Amino acid sequence: MSPIKNIGIIGGGQLARMLSMSCADLGFHVHIYCPESDCPAAQVSNSITNGDYKDKNKLRHFSKSLDILTYEFENIDSSGLREIEKEITIYPPVKSLEIAQDRFLEKSFLLDLGIRTTPFYKVDDFSDLELLVKKKKKQFIIKTRRFGYDGKGQIRVKNYSDLRQKFSKQLIPPSIAEEVLDFDKEISIILARDTKGEIKAFEAAENQHKGGILFSSLVPAKISKETRQEAILISKKIASNLNYIGVIGVEFFLKNQKLYVNEFAPRVHNSGHWTMDASNISQFEQHIRAISGLPLLSPERYADVNMYNLIGTLHTKKQFHTNSKLYLYGKSEVRSGRKMGHINVIKKGAKSSLLE
Amino acid sequence: MSPIKNIGIIGGGQLARMLSMSCADLGFHVHIYCPESDCPAAQVSNSITNGDYKDKNKLRHFSKSLDILTYEFENIDSSGLREIEKEITIYPPVKSLEIAQDRFLEKSFLLDLGIRTTPFYKVDDFSDLELLVKKKKKQFIIKTRRFGYDGKGQIRVKNYSDLRQKFSKQLIPPSIAEEVLDFDKEISIILARDTKGEIKAFEAAENQHKGGILFSSLVPAKISKETRQEAILISKKIASNLNYIGVIGVEFFLKNQKLYVNEFAPRVHNSGHWTMDASNISQFEQHIRAISGLPLLSPERYADVNMYNLIGTLHTKKQFHTNSKLYLYGKSEVRSGRKMGHINVIKKGAKSSLLE
Repeated sequence: MSPIKNIGIIGGGQLARMLSMSCADLGFHVHIYCPESDCPAAQVSNSITNGDYKDKNKLRHFSKSLDILTYEFENIDSSGLREIEKEITIYPPVKSLEIAQDRFLEKSFLLDLGIRTTPFYKVDDFSDLELLVKKKKKQFIIKTRRFGYDGKGQIRVKNYSDLRQKFSKQLIPPSIAEEVLDFDKEISIILARDTKGEIKAFEAAENQHKGGILFSSLVPAKISKETRQEAILISKKIASNLNYIGVIGVEFFLKNQKLYVNEFAPRVHNSGHWTMDASNISQFEQHIRAISGLPLLSPERYADVNMYNLIGTLHTKKQFHTNSKLYLYGKSEVRSGRKMGHINVIKKGAKSSLLE
Repeated sequence: MSPIKNIGIIGGGQLARMLSMSCADLGFHVHIYCPESDCPAAQVSNSITNGDYKDKNKLRHFSKSLDILTYEFENIDSSGLREIEKEITIYPPVKSLEIAQDRFLEKSFLLDLGIRTTPFYKVDDFSDLELLVKKKKKQFIIKTRRFGYDGKGQIRVKNYSDLRQKFSKQLIPPSIAEEVLDFDKEISIILARDTKGEIKAFEAAENQHKGGILFSSLVPAKISKETRQEAILISKKIASNLNYIGVIGVEFFLKNQKLYVNEFAPRVHNSGHWTMDASNISQFEQHIRAISGLPLLSPERYADVNMYNLIGTLHTKKQFHTNSKLYLYGKSEVRSGRKMGHINVIKKGAKSSLLE
């Protein structure tokens, strides 16, 4: 068994909540660090430390009693983690966090590995953007390099006059401009890499977004075998080159049978929530296994499954389907655009890969 | 959705721990009542009240903020619950607890329903026992009427001289004497009954005990279709006649194709832990659905599965099998005979009833 007893998680949202329960299943004690006292994860964990994500001293104090530290989201000040990792192991490695939390570093990392992305350009100030739009005559999405999520910090620009209109202030944070790709599908690959470098991938999911927020993941993605294999290979390449430990989610656009990596998330991923019900192992337990040194399980899928997020509501007709599994995150307030829960609808008559 | 928000559980052991996580999945808040502060359930629940199970005032105070109250074990003073239920709904009904916690009432209840048990006799004092053993010339198991579990409070008696030897004090608590049945198999049925009277049964498990403690449950039980159907019918009869709400576990002996009910437990049951991994719904979530008024799911089994308890140890070779799912209960101390966790070994190539 693992010598690890106490696992710390930075962040107290739904991902930390589901990670906490997997920790409990495996007999680990979980300690949450998050600003709010009644966060979703606090309700199912051993202890909670309330503090700001930028409070290095509090974070360092929090991590003193832990055997290992992980995190549920990217928007953490990594310089604090760099100090903490002198005393405690942090998985996934801080380097992967640093790359993932800066879109320019992320895309450059992919480029260096020869992995296809949509063409992207570094934007340091408004003049960079003016020049680019004038010259390229393409549509762009302007994304802040840091601290964007769920479509926040993204603006679409059609042409030069559109640019002048949308950026009237002419002051923008460090950003990148990506050429708009009118893609056919969005898919994601979720995989785990353990301390020995072994990698286990889950089945590909096909994702739909609404207003920049993931709305549904259909599994398996309706893509060719070759595309699926290629997406897994690219994801493995990313994980190996990061010396990654834990679960990683890689998002792709598919256009004319060509895969473009959109981004990767150094954490469990919303498009992997289906694994809680249609797999022998969930992404949450697989992540905890990877970071605690337990052997990974080989994911086996039991059935076709559709995952639907509950966004800004606790209710949907789908949760009353015969084979619907409902998850609510225990958030005290329902807010527009807030992820309140999700539903896994297991499809009858689907073929099981475990039983083949 | 259910109008229920706060669920209370009396007891803080592993069953309460797994119930708590199912409550969390469904977005309910869980409040634990148990004497120990660091009990397994406290680690994954919203709050804990520490108190003695006999402390009626504390129990009543505990239940004030709840919408519904349930329990994870039988050995609770039911007179306290009778007072509390004037103010709050308790599921499973206190009546089923009262019957189950007294072996003589339990067996008499079964007899009244025409359900086969091994012959049993009320034992109020030692002379009852002397008379019985002299007259019947059979082997008996003497069981205390109340507060026995995992083989505790049970003594086997071969004949009269054996009786004199084992009961030297000639003082015994109210008990029953059951004729020893040299059974072929032990099986169990776990089912849920909801507030509308709808019943959903899980697949039958075949159980092995070691030293009076459940050691393994193999699913499905290797029994004929007819036996399986009869066991389910008997279990449904018991649940319906108790006006039962929640999950109930019914244990059977099988001898020469005849079923004998050994006992029933008005709670989730150790032989149903396999449902966490080889079923579309676990017994824990099904119980919470039943008591909170949510519709039950129709249990569908994904695969054949063997459940093994970890008794007095945290380790077994089986947990490293490719398809082993490990659960540890977070108990601080490993003690001989103590249930520390369990393992579900999912068998490859098994036929799935969901996918038929």
